Amino acid sequence: MPEIIWGENKTAAQLVAIAKRMKDHGSLVLVSRVSEDKAKILSGEFPNGIYYPVARLFIEKNRVENLVKTQGKILVLAAGTSDLPVAEEAFLTAEVLGNSVEKIYDVGVAGLHRLLREVARLREASVLIVVAGMEGALPSVVAGLVGRPIIAVPTSVGYGTGLGGFSALLTMLNGCAPGVTVVNIDNGVGAAVAAHLINRHV
Amino acid sequence: MPEIIWGENKTAAQLVAIAKRMKDHGSLVLVSRVSEDKAKILSGEFPNGIYYPVARLFIEKNRVENLVKTQGKILVLAAGTSDLPVAEEAFLTAEVLGNSVEKIYDVGVAGLHRLLREVARLREASVLIVVAGMEGALPSVVAGLVGRPIIAVPTSVGYGTGLGGFSALLTMLNGCAPGVTVVNIDNGVGAAVAAHLINRHV
Amino acid sequence: MPEIIWGENKTAAQLVAIAKRMKDHGSLVLVSRVSEDKAKILSGEFPNGIYYPVARLFIEKNRVENLVKTQGKILVLAAGTSDLPVAEEAFLTAEVLGNSVEKIYDVGVAGLHRLLREVARLREASVLIVVAGMEGALPSVVAGLVGRPIIAVPTSVGYGTGLGGFSALLTMLNGCAPGVTVVNIDNGVGAAVAAHLINRHV
Amino acid sequence: MPEIIWGENKTAAQLVAIAKRMKDHGSLVLVSRVSEDKAKILSGEFPNGIYYPVARLFIEKNRVENLVKTQGKILVLAAGTSDLPVAEEAFLTAEVLGNSVEKIYDVGVAGLHRLLREVARLREASVLIVVAGMEGALPSVVAGLVGRPIIAVPTSVGYGTGLGGFSALLTMLNGCAPGVTVVNIDNGVGAAVAAHLINRHV
Amino acid sequence: MPEIIWGENKTAAQLVAIAKRMKDHGSLVLVSRVSEDKAKILSGEFPNGIYYPVARLFIEKNRVENLVKTQGKILVLAAGTSDLPVAEEAFLTAEVLGNSVEKIYDVGVAGLHRLLREVARLREASVLIVVAGMEGALPSVVAGLVGRPIIAVPTSVGYGTGLGGFSALLTMLNGCAPGVTVVNIDNGVGAAVAAHLINRHV
Amino acid sequence: MPEIIWGENKTAAQLVAIAKRMKDHGSLVLVSRVSEDKAKILSGEFPNGIYYPVARLFIEKNRVENLVKTQGKILVLAAGTSDLPVAEEAFLTAEVLGNSVEKIYDVGVAGLHRLLREVARLREASVLIVVAGMEGALPSVVAGLVGRPIIAVPTSVGYGTGLGGFSALLTMLNGCAPGVTVVNIDNGVGAAVAAHLINRHV
Amino acid sequence: MPEIIWGENKTAAQLVAIAKRMKDHGSLVLVSRVSEDKAKILSGEFPNGIYYPVARLFIEKNRVENLVKTQGKILVLAAGTSDLPVAEEAFLTAEVLGNSVEKIYDVGVAGLHRLLREVARLREASVLIVVAGMEGALPSVVAGLVGRPIIAVPTSVGYGTGLGGFSALLTMLNGCAPGVTVVNIDNGVGAAVAAHLINRHV
Amino acid sequence: MPEIIWGENKTAAQLVAIAKRMKDHGSLVLVSRVSEDKAKILSGEFPNGIYYPVARLFIEKNRVENLVKTQGKILVLAAGTSDLPVAEEAFLTAEVLGNSVEKIYDVGVAGLHRLLREVARLREASVLIVVAGMEGALPSVVAGLVGRPIIAVPTSVGYGTGLGGFSALLTMLNGCAPGVTVVNIDNGVGAAVAAHLINRHV
Repeated sequence: MPEIIWGENKTAAQLVAIAKRMKDHGSLVLVSRVSEDKAKILSGEFPNGIYYPVARLFIEKNRVENLVKTQGKILVLAAGTSDLPVAEEAFLTAEVLGNSVEKIYDVGVAGLHRLLREVARLREASVLIVVAGMEGALPSVVAGLVGRPIIAVPTSVGYGTGLGGFSALLTMLNGCAPGVTVVNIDNGVGAAVAAHLINRHV
Repeated sequence: MPEIIWGENKTAAQLVAIAKRMKDHGSLVLVSRVSEDKAKILSGEFPNGIYYPVARLFIEKNRVENLVKTQGKILVLAAGTSDLPVAEEAFLTAEVLGNSVEKIYDVGVAGLHRLLREVARLREASVLIVVAGMEGALPSVVAGLVGRPIIAVPTSVGYGTGLGGFSALLTMLNGCAPGVTVVNIDNGVGAAVAAHLINRHV
Repeated sequence: MPEIIWGENKTAAQLVAIAKRMKDHGSLVLVSRVSEDKAKILSGEFPNGIYYPVARLFIEKNRVENLVKTQGKILVLAAGTSDLPVAEEAFLTAEVLGNSVEKIYDVGVAGLHRLLREVARLREASVLIVVAGMEGALPSVVAGLVGRPIIAVPTSVGYGTGLGGFSALLTMLNGCAPGVTVVNIDNGVGAAVAAHLINRHV
Repeated sequence: MPEIIWGENKTAAQLVAIAKRMKDHGSLVLVSRVSEDKAKILSGEFPNGIYYPVARLFIEKNRVENLVKTQGKILVLAAGTSDLPVAEEAFLTAEVLGNSVEKIYDVGVAGLHRLLREVARLREASVLIVVAGMEGALPSVVAGLVGRPIIAVPTSVGYGTGLGGFSALLTMLNGCAPGVTVVNIDNGVGAAVAAHLINRHV
Repeated sequence: MPEIIWGENKTAAQLVAIAKRMKDHGSLVLVSRVSEDKAKILSGEFPNGIYYPVARLFIEKNRVENLVKTQGKILVLAAGTSDLPVAEEAFLTAEVLGNSVEKIYDVGVAGLHRLLREVARLREASVLIVVAGMEGALPSVVAGLVGRPIIAVPTSVGYGTGLGGFSALLTMLNGCAPGVTVVNIDNGVGAAVAAHLINRHV
Repeated sequence: MPEIIWGENKTAAQLVAIAKRMKDHGSLVLVSRVSEDKAKILSGEFPNGIYYPVARLFIEKNRVENLVKTQGKILVLAAGTSDLPVAEEAFLTAEVLGNSVEKIYDVGVAGLHRLLREVARLREASVLIVVAGMEGALPSVVAGLVGRPIIAVPTSVGYGTGLGGFSALLTMLNGCAPGVTVVNIDNGVGAAVAAHLINRHV
Repeated sequence: MPEIIWGENKTAAQLVAIAKRMKDHGSLVLVSRVSEDKAKILSGEFPNGIYYPVARLFIEKNRVENLVKTQGKILVLAAGTSDLPVAEEAFLTAEVLGNSVEKIYDVGVAGLHRLLREVARLREASVLIVVAGMEGALPSVVAGLVGRPIIAVPTSVGYGTGLGGFSALLTMLNGCAPGVTVVNIDNGVGAAVAAHLINRHV
Repeated sequence: MPEIIWGENKTAAQLVAIAKRMKDHGSLVLVSRVSEDKAKILSGEFPNGIYYPVARLFIEKNRVENLVKTQGKILVLAAGTSDLPVAEEAFLTAEVLGNSVEKIYDVGVAGLHRLLREVARLREASVLIVVAGMEGALPSVVAGLVGRPIIAVPTSVGYGTGLGGFSALLTMLNGCAPGVTVVNIDNGVGAAVAAHLINRHV
């Protein structure tokens, strides 16, 4: 498992130093929560790296990654447009760790028919990452449709009582559909890593 | 509108006194949150009254109620077995106020197929009361299926992080499906009265 | 029901794309929580649209809206000057959906005489939307004066312990006056849609 | 000022010991939050004392109290039947401290007409103690009707989101009517003492 | 009682309009929570007005204020340097309402000797306003030293767990010293008005 | 996947009815949160069932379960003696679902040496369920020692600030060790089901 | 350091087993949070042990404890009568660990003179344990009077907004007097152990 | 003990005035939470002072400090890179107060081996200050390895559910390892002062 660098609350200088140390050990460089300012400095030091502005990830692959993809597949779902940054963070992280990954976005529970059209694809996945803010109900509904491990990711979008994602987090913890576990609010990277650890032994 | 007596935090003697005063004014007697002990005392004073132990309601109709039912229909939905007391409180209150009422129970979002089988009946209602604890996601899903006013009632059942119904309450407030409004936790009576005020002008 | 686009947490490009898709389907375009910057971009794309800066709404009607107004009337009340943005959001949304709408502002409970002067108008409405921050007591008082459905909207204005609208929200949920249901903090659009669903069948 | 003994969280033996010490100093004995069990033991030791079960107070006057009542008057208001224990605790405490006290109960904001009938009496008081649970809106309404100091007392009755009185407390703190200050939840004694300190200099 | 205009959450144009209406009625103009920007605009319209930047008050007296001061005296205490804005808001408001007012600042409980030196002055006051953030313990200590009404004002300064003043608010509500009532966090104006209503009848 | 019956908030009669329906479908009967009273009634109806009082589970296997155990292994860890009921709930549930399961208890982080002695066994597991109350730190430490999916279960034991398990829940969500996901407080059954869904494809 | 057994959430059988194991290792037996029922069972097994019902401790010394007391002295302060159980838990624990310990009770900040009379004794201590519920202000005041390490212990007594000790806890964390650190609510044992670790090197 | 000036919520002018007064009394000048802007102004007035930007401290020693260091040693530990500002605030404050201080950073529990390598150094310290955000588990683990007083400092770094440091604070309060006490979130200065008061008598 490569170490992933959490970019928030670290200066650009600290990020570069840690990233260099990792590259010297032959690891890929994967930094999360990177602002555009810091991304420029990282790009200067790691010219082969790519910055993904929506996901706010900076990634420089090394030789060995991505040659062989896993047999099992991770599927990333997102409830609404506002959940995309977190969903993309999860998608890209899972991909660079060597997993086959797919995604289906904009399938919130208030428009159930869009989700129901995708049931066949849901059932092909080995692990599902389900990203949702607002009411946070998507993981429960999905868990009722498939019999696979589901990692729920609450996001911090929403009105006042969303409480910065706490409302969605509580919804996800309180659901009684089988197989759902939860990671922290907006923690797309954590969901991807957990999904990867499950998927690589399928 | 008859006044409804909230039975919790009042002594049996206080309940009897208030109920007699209401009966003298020709009103029906409707007392909520009545324990079995208090129900016995009320039954002694109002022998024509009926006690509903699941809903914890005590009701004595007077002559005029229920002769004519409303044209529009109120539909009460409940997500799980544990939500029955609140759902029944809403159902019986709405009925005694003169509404046509129906109910569909055990249609939580984790078993979506049971709900989807009932879509036609959902669409016949003028107003829907949707009762759910745990993740509280049912009102959003229902609102995506019908274009009618929905009154969501969170219930206090559930695990630790259900926070005595707060988690379901927040879920219901944060949903973005159209037409959902919310009453207080476990407030089946309040939902029924609001539904009645809507339904009687349909 | 036209879909309403929630403008917060979406980029201008995303808003334009979604709005175009809706216009192509013959729907009106109604975007909420629109900052002035985004409003300029939307106005460039939809020159017949109007931006309402207080309510932060962007609206482009299409041919069929507003020709016939509903028979029943929605009344929007606001407690104080600071509640205007949310009240106006509700007022304009209800209006563009085809409802007869009126408004009475600055009738907070600390100046009760201003409210009592308007009782006759309150009783003419089919549905009332009552917007209040601070102590949030207005919906209870109004519900004691009329026998109609009331949709209470808490706002996020106020001192420290207002908790960003939570204090008013709790007040509204805990009131015991009949017929009050609640939407999320600052959710003027949600209140208008719920009122519309009730009003169109009066 | 006589010291008032807070009876909760103290054993009967501790209460008797503290009360005896106070009586030896010539003070009246006033114990709050006294259960019936403890009241019996106190009555055995202080046969001239009286136990008020609703207010849960035990009081033994000594010679000098209550001979002369204050010129100014304290008025105690309560919103609902469930608020009586706290209102009576305030009423009796204020009275035994030598104040002229009156009371008006069951004047909650959802039945505004009952309150408005009493405006003349409200304006005769020097200080008002306003007790309310549920939505807690009564103090704001009263403050808009009189120009006197108002001490608001939230009570812990109510539905789930009443949060044991927190909702009413927040309502009272967030009101913007002039002259309202607040004491702790259910703290009738504290309200009475503060009112007494104001009233004795009128 | 002149109406006091709460300046936060209102535009400069709204403030000017309300203030003009009040001046036309012969009232003094007193606006709280005024930023420097808004103060400039108010000064342009009310050239006799004064802006107090620490207290963030804008005040224009009219003829009759302040000619006769009250016989009783209000004393404003502040625990620390950071509490000055709120203390000054209370001090200036009480003064312009016609009260004799004094102040003692920097007497927090961690330096008890500074407070104990002032006991004689504390006992001369008719009403005390005690402003404190951080631990919020000052009102309890002061109430143990004097037998007068005390209005406690929590402030929002402090470390993380100060919770924007909630910690000090809870401390003040939970104290058991006699005669303390509480206003909302940072609400210097509210404390001054309540103190004024008490003091003018001493 | 057999459906698991959540026994809390259901009457014995409801439990029996649901369990019978499941048995008729050939499923095993697995009821959680069963009190001793309800267990007696269940045992009367299902004489081949076994009640586990520590885990509060009632289980009646049918013919086909447990014949073949999974190749991968689930390991259940518990931090302290007080966490045993939840750990046992997880252990027994995982076992009856057909998994090879082992357990190591009493390995809290304050006695690190006991945990470090077991590192080899930790690394043999396919999935780990880590149960901890109090500070909730065990999952982070374990995740630093193994590279496997870890399902963290907070428990509701502990002092006042444990907040009924919320403190441990927050700790587990905030850890930054790779591969940890979380289920609701005391939700041993949920952890076991999620672990089973992962383990059966190893 | 002998291990201390936390008696809550453990059965009597579990306590006896753990205590025997400790005694076999030559350690003293010290069990906290012991109910009277469990104390009887422990006394049967350890006839030389003593049960302290106020502190809810069960202690059996072995030969070597208490022969030599420390040179430095621990002083335990308690604000009110209701804080005694926690204060006694701290006092007895510190004593059995071999420390010279003294105590001063009933010195809450609302009766400051009682505390000020004891300043000389306060200054003789090496470490102070200060126990307080309600407003929790005592540690700050004490820290302003002495220059020694102070361990503050919030207790869970008090009115509704005491939040089970959280209010006092926050007060203690937010104080700015030097040298105060805090342990968990009601954690008298933890305070004693920390004080012991400090005191044994004085 | 020199007084330490808390720089947040004070203007540069206020800081300079307080610092001058302290210097006139022969005390060192130590100001915490100093922004770069204020540091420049302080440097102009106190040219011998040094500003430490990471720790945000401004320090001007006077003649007598630091000549003799304490015999006992304070050790500062930090879990992650993001905790450095608070750890450095503690380190520098302890040092300028005359203590021998050492530091070990980047020893979070998810990488346990780095911590275990340092056990010998941990055991040489008289007092330990342990700084950690995120899960906040480090103090418990350290307390299990050494038998010395440990002062835990939660920091406000982390994801959404870190709640600005509250999650780490709760973790630290709920740990059951012996000898841990806690200071407020980010309060490095408070930890250093408490450690100093312990260390100077070793």
